[in-house]
Amino acid sequence: MTRYDKDRAMITHEEEPFNAESPPKMLNQNFLTDNNFFFSRNHGSIPNVDETNYRLKVDGMVDTPLELSMQDLREFPKREIIAVMQCAGNRREGLMEIAEIPGETPWGAGAIGNAGWAGVSLREVLLAAGIQDGARHAAFLGLDEVEGDGGDLNYGGSIPVGKALAPETLLAYEMNDEILPIEHGFPLRIVAPGYYGARSVKWLSRITLQEQPSDNHFQVNEYKLFAPGVTAETEGSHEGLMLGEMQVNAVICTPQDGASTESGRTSVRGYAVAGGGRRVERVDVSSDDGKSWIQAELLQGVDEPWAWTFWETDLYLTLGEHRIVARAVDSSAATQPSTAAEVWNFKGYANNSWHGVRVEVG
Amino acid sequence: MTRYDKDRAMITHEEEPFNAESPPKMLNQNFLTDNNFFFSRNHGSIPNVDETNYRLKVDGMVDTPLELSMQDLREFPKREIIAVMQCAGNRREGLMEIAEIPGETPWGAGAIGNAGWAGVSLREVLLAAGIQDGARHAAFLGLDEVEGDGGDLNYGGSIPVGKALAPETLLAYEMNDEILPIEHGFPLRIVAPGYYGARSVKWLSRITLQEQPSDNHFQVNEYKLFAPGVTAETEGSHEGLMLGEMQVNAVICTPQDGASTESGRTSVRGYAVAGGGRRVERVDVSSDDGKSWIQAELLQGVDEPWAWTFWETDLYLTLGEHRIVARAVDSSAATQPSTAAEVWNFKGYANNSWHGVRVEVG
Repeated sequence: MTRYDKDRAMITHEEEPFNAESPPKMLNQNFLTDNNFFFSRNHGSIPNVDETNYRLKVDGMVDTPLELSMQDLREFPKREIIAVMQCAGNRREGLMEIAEIPGETPWGAGAIGNAGWAGVSLREVLLAAGIQDGARHAAFLGLDEVEGDGGDLNYGGSIPVGKALAPETLLAYEMNDEILPIEHGFPLRIVAPGYYGARSVKWLSRITLQEQPSDNHFQVNEYKLFAPGVTAETEGSHEGLMLGEMQVNAVICTPQDGASTESGRTSVRGYAVAGGGRRVERVDVSSDDGKSWIQAELLQGVDEPWAWTFWETDLYLTLGEHRIVARAVDSSAATQPSTAAEVWNFKGYANNSWHGVRVEVG
Repeated sequence: MTRYDKDRAMITHEEEPFNAESPPKMLNQNFLTDNNFFFSRNHGSIPNVDETNYRLKVDGMVDTPLELSMQDLREFPKREIIAVMQCAGNRREGLMEIAEIPGETPWGAGAIGNAGWAGVSLREVLLAAGIQDGARHAAFLGLDEVEGDGGDLNYGGSIPVGKALAPETLLAYEMNDEILPIEHGFPLRIVAPGYYGARSVKWLSRITLQEQPSDNHFQVNEYKLFAPGVTAETEGSHEGLMLGEMQVNAVICTPQDGASTESGRTSVRGYAVAGGGRRVERVDVSSDDGKSWIQAELLQGVDEPWAWTFWETDLYLTLGEHRIVARAVDSSAATQPSTAAEVWNFKGYANNSWHGVRVEVG
């Protein structure tokens, strides 16, 4: 076991702050990712919150500011949802092969997991506070102390008020039928399905309704998609896109990159995700770099709008080395760019280029 | 003038049914496309509807079926919206360069236009009829008689009931402050912003609320995105994706493909669109096939959620031949695939690969 009851097979990039991901081959063994296999991405020390003294503040453009204990929160109806959580830096490793991305974690394809979350509807809590006209964003603040923007601060971020009021958005206190683990935000976190994990603030202390997006360092300066010509030196002069919804993405979990297999049938399996309420409609697999494609079978997740989708297909490969690639199409008919070079950006976010593995058939 | 008061510069692919598009260089002259430059895509003869006898039926899963004259409809509040209308076959020509697509119109990049539409909120008409529980789709039927599926039928299609109830969806009777022209659906058409034009049924005769999508030939068999391995012969065994929302797309209007320019500054201008309520966030332009990019300036349309966005940048090109390409990024951070081969499908829909033009600098 590593820290925080994580399985020892986890790939730990950093102990402090704790940043660990799941090996892809473990990810598609269970539709619901075990808590002890689930990736954890942190910007600061993981706070040890005393549930008894814990209070959630709801303030800003509300009629009645609230201060809620966990007991108060548990009096709201319990809501459950299966939702995928993905770091915006998932698959950054593929971008780092194109050009260096200093100071960022080199995530493989395991900074993602799918869990059953239970808690309270954020909508119901906000309606209890009373939403004032003109409130456009729900800003969240965590209890974790992080360094950023030249000083110490708390991690924060925001989502549009429409998403905050959507039925799928939760204040979660359970994860896969367990009490929310400490490294996943105990006692309470946001779960904003269809959005990158960066907006699902952990150790949540405060929700502020406001006209503008959060001015927290991690909303304003981090988790932004910059144009390809922008670098750390020129960043200030460019706006960048605040990352919210995830993009369509497919990853091959087995075979693993570099695997050797026998000739004959090779089963290719993996996960696919879409964002913003879009669904995974199709997964294509190619063993000739996209010149021809086989349509994979979609397995679990097809009927779960906020979960990932598992997929599988068989390939019959001849002797020698092959590169197998996969790509998905979502319900808006959006698909993935072919190469990491096309989506490279200096912060290394949102790599949804075709995922490939090399296999040796002998 | 060609038929239907269209400008003679229009590119007419067919006179019967009438299918004509705008030359791209004319498209970015005006943010609102003139009615006589506006593309027209038809599957059958254009019906000459007598407004006096015209009635719109609203039936299916409603409390009170309605039959509304144009006078009845004009008693609802008048709503206006600026929205882009795009054929799902726009830019099919680029797919045909990869492999033949028999029996389909070879649209260039001009099967698109942006207009101010005025009419009645579909939502308000449906609420007047009373929506029953379980209604999931609004199916539309036109008065145009078309051939398809082995016989004569009326053109039809459907949108999800959530889109039918969205504030932007109109029953339009005016286009750019003129009475809706006959070739654009007089006296009444659907305008479903963010969706392909195929769902914005013209010469609308009937709206049916129902549990399933429309079973009309053009919903079930046409306007579907099939996987790359599917052909006309194998189609029956595959589901395909019913095309609804448009994908992010950018087109270079000037310079034109094949143009000669003098060395020095070349102004590159065009349009970009996104679908499903997403916005155009960025347009990149490259003169080295995507090895480096310049971020274009976004002009009109930035504040119009359902319109196209005009963009412009300057390039300084050396002597010789250059290929200039453009691509856009939408607010969900989705971007475009690089090559037409990647998105090729046997019906030739939804080509949003990078758009390129060749210019000779002399």
